[in-house]
Amino acid sequence: MSKAIYRCIELLRLLTNLQLPQANRMVRERTMYLLQWARPERIMATSNFPIKELRSTGPASRRRIWNLAAPHFGLILQEMFGHIQTLMKWMSLDQLCLHNKNPCTKFSQRCNPSISSHLSQLISHRREPQMAENLIRFGIVGCAEIARKVARAINSAPNSAVSAIASRSLDKALNFAAVNGLPETVKVYGSYHQILDDPCVDAVYMPLPTSLHRRWAILAAEKKKHILLEKPTALDVEELDQILDACESNGVQFMDGSMWLHHPRTAKVKEIISDPKLFGHVNYIHSTSTTSGTKQFLEENIRVKSDLDALGALGDLAWYCIGALLWAKDYELPIQVRALPDVTKNKAGVILSCTATLHWGKSSNETSATIHCSFLSHTSMDITISGTHGSVNVYDFIIPYQETSASFDITSGAKFAELHIGWNTKPEEIEVVNELPQEALMIAEFSRLVQAIRTRGSCPDSKWPQISRKTQVVMDAVKKSIDTDCRPVYL
Amino acid sequence: MSKAIYRCIELLRLLTNLQLPQANRMVRERTMYLLQWARPERIMATSNFPIKELRSTGPASRRRIWNLAAPHFGLILQEMFGHIQTLMKWMSLDQLCLHNKNPCTKFSQRCNPSISSHLSQLISHRREPQMAENLIRFGIVGCAEIARKVARAINSAPNSAVSAIASRSLDKALNFAAVNGLPETVKVYGSYHQILDDPCVDAVYMPLPTSLHRRWAILAAEKKKHILLEKPTALDVEELDQILDACESNGVQFMDGSMWLHHPRTAKVKEIISDPKLFGHVNYIHSTSTTSGTKQFLEENIRVKSDLDALGALGDLAWYCIGALLWAKDYELPIQVRALPDVTKNKAGVILSCTATLHWGKSSNETSATIHCSFLSHTSMDITISGTHGSVNVYDFIIPYQETSASFDITSGAKFAELHIGWNTKPEEIEVVNELPQEALMIAEFSRLVQAIRTRGSCPDSKWPQISRKTQVVMDAVKKSIDTDCRPVYL
Repeated sequence: MSKAIYRCIELLRLLTNLQLPQANRMVRERTMYLLQWARPERIMATSNFPIKELRSTGPASRRRIWNLAAPHFGLILQEMFGHIQTLMKWMSLDQLCLHNKNPCTKFSQRCNPSISSHLSQLISHRREPQMAENLIRFGIVGCAEIARKVARAINSAPNSAVSAIASRSLDKALNFAAVNGLPETVKVYGSYHQILDDPCVDAVYMPLPTSLHRRWAILAAEKKKHILLEKPTALDVEELDQILDACESNGVQFMDGSMWLHHPRTAKVKEIISDPKLFGHVNYIHSTSTTSGTKQFLEENIRVKSDLDALGALGDLAWYCIGALLWAKDYELPIQVRALPDVTKNKAGVILSCTATLHWGKSSNETSATIHCSFLSHTSMDITISGTHGSVNVYDFIIPYQETSASFDITSGAKFAELHIGWNTKPEEIEVVNELPQEALMIAEFSRLVQAIRTRGSCPDSKWPQISRKTQVVMDAVKKSIDTDCRPVYL
Repeated sequence: MSKAIYRCIELLRLLTNLQLPQANRMVRERTMYLLQWARPERIMATSNFPIKELRSTGPASRRRIWNLAAPHFGLILQEMFGHIQTLMKWMSLDQLCLHNKNPCTKFSQRCNPSISSHLSQLISHRREPQMAENLIRFGIVGCAEIARKVARAINSAPNSAVSAIASRSLDKALNFAAVNGLPETVKVYGSYHQILDDPCVDAVYMPLPTSLHRRWAILAAEKKKHILLEKPTALDVEELDQILDACESNGVQFMDGSMWLHHPRTAKVKEIISDPKLFGHVNYIHSTSTTSGTKQFLEENIRVKSDLDALGALGDLAWYCIGALLWAKDYELPIQVRALPDVTKNKAGVILSCTATLHWGKSSNETSATIHCSFLSHTSMDITISGTHGSVNVYDFIIPYQETSASFDITSGAKFAELHIGWNTKPEEIEVVNELPQEALMIAEFSRLVQAIRTRGSCPDSKWPQISRKTQVVMDAVKKSIDTDCRPVYL
């Protein structure tokens, strides 16, 4: 099995060296991720292999380590094969070889014999191949800026593909397809109704202004389309409940577009703050999401328009902070939510900046938290979690500084040095490598759930709609407190 | 002049190599600071020399750089000579040479001729030498744990020395002197009255429990002792005003023991957040000060006793956070202060943990802030300042991780990369080297002011008592809000 893994790595290296006409910057970047992913350290980390042992070991012991990791190789290989397949899809090679009965014939005409040889040997190791008919076909409803990022993610996730796009204007949709290099096979619609009627669309990604969510998400559910809905999910929880009811009664999966929840760093931080010895009880959480809007943004952007994204910075930015607090508290709802008096609104009454506090429990599970969101301050996206025995800081929790890895700081058991002239420890930076960008991991997870519904008759997973609903409930509470002169709102 | 600087550096190097019996760990560490301080880069930074030019310059241009920096050399040399003197004081060499009319005679008997030669040539460059009679003589009133750190600072600052110590118990005072290696010339008293009556004590450092501050600080002022008072300065501003009145009417200097304000990092951060282009308007500040008290601490420490430090975590920890907010806001008082409902108290009603919000202005100078302090959470001392164009994070603002340098993170002009798949920049870590620990810099500043009063008849500097008073006023407001069920308090 380990030979197969080595072969995968070798294949990735060879693919990297290809200079195909289709190989653009994204293809090269993608390949670099995969190669990075294929580093033995990464494989060990993925397979829960004791990574410290690896770090302290010289090259001579490499063989022993491979042997120790062998039990995990089956899964690794399967995952790695998926990556190679994705890469080849990027290079437009998948039609030529992977989906061909004799996969290597045409491929070998274009590539060097080594690749062909590696590939044919690897085919035998392949499990549950992702044939084209198994990919979840996405329709993108609305050509917002964020849709560019998600379109790329849909095409880089191993189990999905963009099948169609729609805008209210056909020209805008055609332009979107051209600018983002979508293949000609992607259908382009000038109406949301048309894309929802397309039987080749399994799921929709919906980056529409919040005020349009209820109408189009309910219609999509009625058309049996699974729904990935941009945040904030709705103007209030009553609207969201109508959307969720429609999803439930039509048996379709619902998920909101909070990408950061799918980054492996998020899971790693959760693991640490859940460790009673390392971290202890979560006492205090602070989270910010700010971005300094230009004059044009503050005058024209849909996020500050009362008829489009009426929740302003609360919906666009605090959604993340609220989601982060709930995530850290295992989705227990706070008992009290209160806005602070520093609310700034524009002339139309849309929130540009606000701060709020949240409190959980009165007994052993007590936690307090503060959040701050603003369109008026420099970019920040911090979450700081303070426990009895440790503290964690993440400074880029919503969008990591870079795509291929993300880090956070952990301090545990910090004491002052003799005479209190320093600390006995400094925060340790922990880096988490991600094989796919967080948005592609979100798409992959969503597509996995949709696939399970389609192929195995599974029920839609209730975890994701519940997360969205709780976030919306708390956001509503902040809004209510703002609207009632910062009175506390009890949940 | 630059030759003299080179000579200083060389002398420091030679001193480092000495293996004198008195050379303990602290001496070695101290010498390392000085050598670090003596790096050309550091000298340039101190003298406002354009450091970027130096970094981009090869060794060939060194000569040109020295010439450019020449105008600053007078001051640098003077400061460096002070450092050498401090070092020799540490090594118990000062009695042998610097304060001797023929300084090099005895010194050369013990040290190698190079040191002696360097020293004798340097004497000619010396300006305003700090003779023993010019050192500010400190009496330490109370042998608290923190007094150990401050005693060391008094003896390492260039213009001060510990002259006497006092405890209510003579045994405790004797033990303190022995444990901390104080010279036999230091007088030891078993009563606070005695030390205040000692005419050889110019100034007192007073690390007593807060409830004793009013009585002893007023008495010290009446005895014409300058006062360095540990924080929190008093139980409330009425008490503090009585202390400050006593200082003013007796013409003595007052300062509280907030060491971090004296670290050069603090000035550097201030410079950055005051830069309109780099940082813009300060919109939001968040600061925490937490430490996880052991069971014993939470039961027995004076900081949780209602008759000793009745303000608990608010006085001991939030003092720093409040001070940091006021510092960031150029000591403008907030208009509103409000505690949050997460207050935790012990059975005696002493605050163990609390959170509060502060708001400034309603117009262009609006700022909001949150602070959190706790004896129940893992060590943290963060201040995050969020401006229109930049943000700054300091994670060890009260006690830096290490003594010799401290850093902070600055991000300015951060935007998202194309497709929002990352950032265009990451926080830059800026390191600030400090020639003396922050507590020694505090002592040096306090002693400088006392010296000016003594030798030039200057008035006591009103800056430091004003800072203490504003901090106390805001602390009182948080306390009042806590005591009135979290009602807002308007200032």
